[in-house]
Amino acid sequence: MKPTDALSVKSAEGLAAPAGLTGAPPRRRKESVGELLAGLKLGDRGALSRAITLVESAKPSDHRLASELLDRTLQVSESTVRVGITGAPGVGKSTLIEALGLHVVSRGSRLAVLTVDPSSASTHGSILGDKSRMARLSILDAAFIRPSPSGCRLGGVANQTREAIQLCEAAGFDVVFVETVGVGQSETEVRGMVDCFLLLAMAGAGDELQGIKRGIMELADLIALTKADGENHVRAEVAAGQIERALMLTPPNASGRRAHVRLCSALESSGISELWDDVRRVVDDDRASGRFTRRRRDQSIAWMHELVRQSILDAWLRRADVRTRLDALADAVGGGRVSARAAANELVSAVE
Amino acid sequence: MKPTDALSVKSAEGLAAPAGLTGAPPRRRKESVGELLAGLKLGDRGALSRAITLVESAKPSDHRLASELLDRTLQVSESTVRVGITGAPGVGKSTLIEALGLHVVSRGSRLAVLTVDPSSASTHGSILGDKSRMARLSILDAAFIRPSPSGCRLGGVANQTREAIQLCEAAGFDVVFVETVGVGQSETEVRGMVDCFLLLAMAGAGDELQGIKRGIMELADLIALTKADGENHVRAEVAAGQIERALMLTPPNASGRRAHVRLCSALESSGISELWDDVRRVVDDDRASGRFTRRRRDQSIAWMHELVRQSILDAWLRRADVRTRLDALADAVGGGRVSARAAANELVSAVE
Repeated sequence: MKPTDALSVKSAEGLAAPAGLTGAPPRRRKESVGELLAGLKLGDRGALSRAITLVESAKPSDHRLASELLDRTLQVSESTVRVGITGAPGVGKSTLIEALGLHVVSRGSRLAVLTVDPSSASTHGSILGDKSRMARLSILDAAFIRPSPSGCRLGGVANQTREAIQLCEAAGFDVVFVETVGVGQSETEVRGMVDCFLLLAMAGAGDELQGIKRGIMELADLIALTKADGENHVRAEVAAGQIERALMLTPPNASGRRAHVRLCSALESSGISELWDDVRRVVDDDRASGRFTRRRRDQSIAWMHELVRQSILDAWLRRADVRTRLDALADAVGGGRVSARAAANELVSAVE
Repeated sequence: MKPTDALSVKSAEGLAAPAGLTGAPPRRRKESVGELLAGLKLGDRGALSRAITLVESAKPSDHRLASELLDRTLQVSESTVRVGITGAPGVGKSTLIEALGLHVVSRGSRLAVLTVDPSSASTHGSILGDKSRMARLSILDAAFIRPSPSGCRLGGVANQTREAIQLCEAAGFDVVFVETVGVGQSETEVRGMVDCFLLLAMAGAGDELQGIKRGIMELADLIALTKADGENHVRAEVAAGQIERALMLTPPNASGRRAHVRLCSALESSGISELWDDVRRVVDDDRASGRFTRRRRDQSIAWMHELVRQSILDAWLRRADVRTRLDALADAVGGGRVSARAAANELVSAVE
């Protein structure tokens, strides 16, 4: 599955599809699940892209196909590595992800970069932009970059990303970065779908830290201080010391470790390969202890519970009798004749 | 209901309960709903406090009583004013709320200040602290200050606050401030329970604005620039001009207006009464246009839908047959034999 030349560049079309199988223009006719699967098995990024689009589709007619595709790509490949990456705007996230990604690809891996950006669900457009952010990475054959899904379907952006991870791995991408812009709950959601969580931060204009939100440090396995170059290097060292002292005072995270702090510079290419070694060490430790397998299992179950909650609710609220009753109750509540709680209680009694 | 002396100070016990009716120590025996209602009708803050505690209670035995209490305080009093107030930490929110609150009370109103702080739901403690934040306001008879509920029950912190608003109004508090610390979705939730939404911001050390998060400006009816005093006044004026120009380029908000910008200083007591006049003007305009009534009605219905979603789900997931099936599916999903989506689909078919 791995390309012979890791850093080889895509053809002009950017698809690199094996001739014959999936070379047809995507929109002409609907591919069958079998055809998509064949494309995925060949590592074809065009097929992967279309598979993700199918899974993200809000069209009811696509749901059955998407389910079938997901069931047939269900695999427990524990040799893959899923890395969550977060950091506030301004810490140089794209630049660092590209540098780290180029290193990963140079080591012979195939890398997919996915994005969870909840703000794009409401604005129907990603503020994180697209492939043009990572120009050097995006032209590589061994890299697949997918911007945040726009619009919100079952489970929201985060669950669509979970399913996209599965499809990327089915297409032979053995390293998946899941990037989040860090709005609201998104770090917690991303932590729930990766093996290793990396927090990016930088030393501020003074010695203070920028880009570390309350409660995020506890999620991290690794903390990388970006832009630790030139005259900023000293500030970064001071900041790293501060973080390390702060970490000493906090309990170990859910993985039983305290985050390791690493100084990086994409500009000077320093600390990048070391950061990837840090990631590998976290993953290797967790594999050796059995925590890796346990966490992936727990993540799958938690994800199922989340999907169940949403599916049940959607199905229930689609029922004609429920809708009729709900409309009547909305009138009564809107008119001040029934409290919202009483209305909810009445509907619940129909379930129990 | 209004006290003869608006700025009169509480008795040492801080309860100001009318003798005889609700003077019993709160914990000795459970009050009946009728007793709580009688206390509320007298405007007794001790009874109000216990009523809110009942509604926030996670104990199943309290749910029926809470429902009855809410049903019996269900009223559409359109003479009350609900004001949402948000602003990032550091903009002087407590100080401004206290100054504005003292002004409101001096005008003869009774004021309740409630807090929505989602972060307290996870940490089981409010980072916003308690009454000690607003020392001058909290000692007044005509003021009621309630910190954020800790712990998370049906509907989360935001829905508990909706019910608390209702109880405050039933106890004769004709002005309710709902303060939020502005984490994640909380501004949107608070916007969904108030008549007027006020955003606090301040001019930064440079001319840049501090405390305005993406997407928040669009929710605001009013923007107050705090700490516009001393040498900061000029910066605040520059910032106000920037905001006004930015607002000219954005479409009107859901209430059909562009936010008005007001310079305030709690320190110099400037702009405070003018800010309250701004709030009154927003509310009066909306009352005249019918938007006030329409919005409150829509808010009630949206709230019912939210409660229904949560209640139904909770009831469904409590069912023994569902739990058994869910446990079996969790095993299958954890073992990689069934996809999360397929498991969800299977459970849904039992609902349809």
